[in-house]
Amino acid sequence: MKRFHLTFLCLLPAALFAQQALNQKPDFVSPEINGNNITLRMFAPNANNVNIIGDFASQPIPMTRDSLGVWTGTVYDVVPELYIYQFDVDGYKIADASNSYTCRDISTIYSLAFVPGKETEKYAVHDVPHGTVSRTWYHSDSTGRDRRFTVYTPAGYEKSNDSYPVLYLLHGMGGDEEAWMTLGRASQILDNLIAEGAVKPMIVVMPNGNIDLAAAPGESSLGYVPPTTRLPHTMDGTFESSFKELVNHVDSTYRTIADKEHRAVAGLSMGGYHSLNISQMYPNDFGYVGMFSAAIPEQFLNGAYVDNKQDLWMAIGEDDFLYEPNAKFRKTLFDTGVGYVYLESKGGHTWKNWRLYLSQFLPRLF
Amino acid sequence: MKRFHLTFLCLLPAALFAQQALNQKPDFVSPEINGNNITLRMFAPNANNVNIIGDFASQPIPMTRDSLGVWTGTVYDVVPELYIYQFDVDGYKIADASNSYTCRDISTIYSLAFVPGKETEKYAVHDVPHGTVSRTWYHSDSTGRDRRFTVYTPAGYEKSNDSYPVLYLLHGMGGDEEAWMTLGRASQILDNLIAEGAVKPMIVVMPNGNIDLAAAPGESSLGYVPPTTRLPHTMDGTFESSFKELVNHVDSTYRTIADKEHRAVAGLSMGGYHSLNISQMYPNDFGYVGMFSAAIPEQFLNGAYVDNKQDLWMAIGEDDFLYEPNAKFRKTLFDTGVGYVYLESKGGHTWKNWRLYLSQFLPRLF
Repeated sequence: MKRFHLTFLCLLPAALFAQQALNQKPDFVSPEINGNNITLRMFAPNANNVNIIGDFASQPIPMTRDSLGVWTGTVYDVVPELYIYQFDVDGYKIADASNSYTCRDISTIYSLAFVPGKETEKYAVHDVPHGTVSRTWYHSDSTGRDRRFTVYTPAGYEKSNDSYPVLYLLHGMGGDEEAWMTLGRASQILDNLIAEGAVKPMIVVMPNGNIDLAAAPGESSLGYVPPTTRLPHTMDGTFESSFKELVNHVDSTYRTIADKEHRAVAGLSMGGYHSLNISQMYPNDFGYVGMFSAAIPEQFLNGAYVDNKQDLWMAIGEDDFLYEPNAKFRKTLFDTGVGYVYLESKGGHTWKNWRLYLSQFLPRLF
Repeated sequence: MKRFHLTFLCLLPAALFAQQALNQKPDFVSPEINGNNITLRMFAPNANNVNIIGDFASQPIPMTRDSLGVWTGTVYDVVPELYIYQFDVDGYKIADASNSYTCRDISTIYSLAFVPGKETEKYAVHDVPHGTVSRTWYHSDSTGRDRRFTVYTPAGYEKSNDSYPVLYLLHGMGGDEEAWMTLGRASQILDNLIAEGAVKPMIVVMPNGNIDLAAAPGESSLGYVPPTTRLPHTMDGTFESSFKELVNHVDSTYRTIADKEHRAVAGLSMGGYHSLNISQMYPNDFGYVGMFSAAIPEQFLNGAYVDNKQDLWMAIGEDDFLYEPNAKFRKTLFDTGVGYVYLESKGGHTWKNWRLYLSQFLPRLF
């Protein structure tokens, strides 16, 4: 039943619905995805040189200018993937102003281009039951602050009386409690793997690993913190020492199975460093540890014994700048008879790998 | 206890922790907020002309270039507010690449500058109990799809057995289920007003009013939809006709008080249009209606009687392009003896006003 007529508003320019002060109407589409090709466009009539930079290519891709000042470039035959890109305009890098799908990684805003295919099936949005992703807060006595975290509860959690195992999933340096939800695609990976029966329904808790921050930009009572990749106290053990505050809050707030066999911790880069430390500080609280392209705490590179009371899983790319310390750490584990499972992939220190590692790690849990 | 030594990683350039392919390290701060002045900077060595455009000024503000190619401009003596801005670089508008606090409004990425003060107290993050903000899904039989929505549950919801009233809060044209959480600052406004006792604890449900979409960019199984301000079926009654699907899902999933006296609907611009239609379609289900800078459905401009079985609240700015139809609608209400409460503010069709209207509307509910 269509009770309502089209309003007079149809006759107004659509852009009027934007905020009045700041209108901008692109007259072209970017990105335009045709099969495995990505065409990107930008209006920059006075620019001398515009290149595409993105993780679909190891070199900048030149764009060409038409008579109206619109620059166009195409990236051909890419493997299906969620790509990030920027434009390099005469030496400065900016996001695609025509693309409303963006994300922040550390302090940089990237545009995203999703090229669907077999390779992206694990983290595409499918017509399966979706979990709920919540941003919520816990009180940290050790810092005297409320701190924000993200929590995934599996589809059906709200109407169920079941209790669930918990994975604590940690971000890298410069990231925050949003990171695994954007480029990490964690909720999509969980939705899909749970739906196909490959992964047990679980709660996933994603805190802010920068102990001197309370929350992501715009969400913190501490105000705006200029972007930096290195915050105080992020890698001096303070976060790990306070970790039980979060675990206790989660166990008292959500229907968790609150024992070692049903609790895991994993993270990427700095989050892998945190995860290993946490596993050693609380040997009876975590049954599984995942280290994705992990930074390795110094003492373990210097031969400190890993008292491995957990299932330890490690992954890294063959081009990762942390490959060597990981190789040294693996040798130490081998020499001291500590077991682990290891995945080596192509590529480097990238979200493409971390999405892969998460999808490989999850089926091993619980 | 600091059990862990600083890692060797301290010796590496911090930027290495970013994804390897795409590094960018700003060597200046932007925005820099000093009292009521905002200084903005951008590296653009080859640009001819760079201006700041933002809702802190009615005219572009010129920036000046230093010998290194960094452009700087300062906006002086602004009223405390959450401002949005871009740089106009030789005719194209881009966000501030040094500012990690951004948002999307319709199809445009803006940078944000938060100037704290008395005027922003209502929506700043304070040290008060914070509600939980969840992104979750309901099944819509009428469209055959799962559709995503945002829901605010007040602080303490998870550990309480109480039931709560519900406000359905709708976005404008081109917005989506994220809009009220970013520029709308709805969760901060609710946290603050509930903490001071001015507003009853409530659940706030923020759906996607574009019935042909399932979810915000990147979250939809329908893939990437190029940005547009006018989607099919957004203002033909289809969304309103399907609205009870959402209400039924919410009432069966959350601890709601499921009656007219404890259910409200409000929205901005197109969302105000939806709200009025919903109030007329379901006169026994909603006790309160809020219209913020609302588009007015044609039949009500042409004299159709508003069967007002709800508390009706309206607000608009004196410069809003929808001022005249709102004035005509108010006259019709007056002529037919239908009561309402009305707030007229300065300014136009802006988030500054919608934050104000929400903070004025909430205390009247329930």
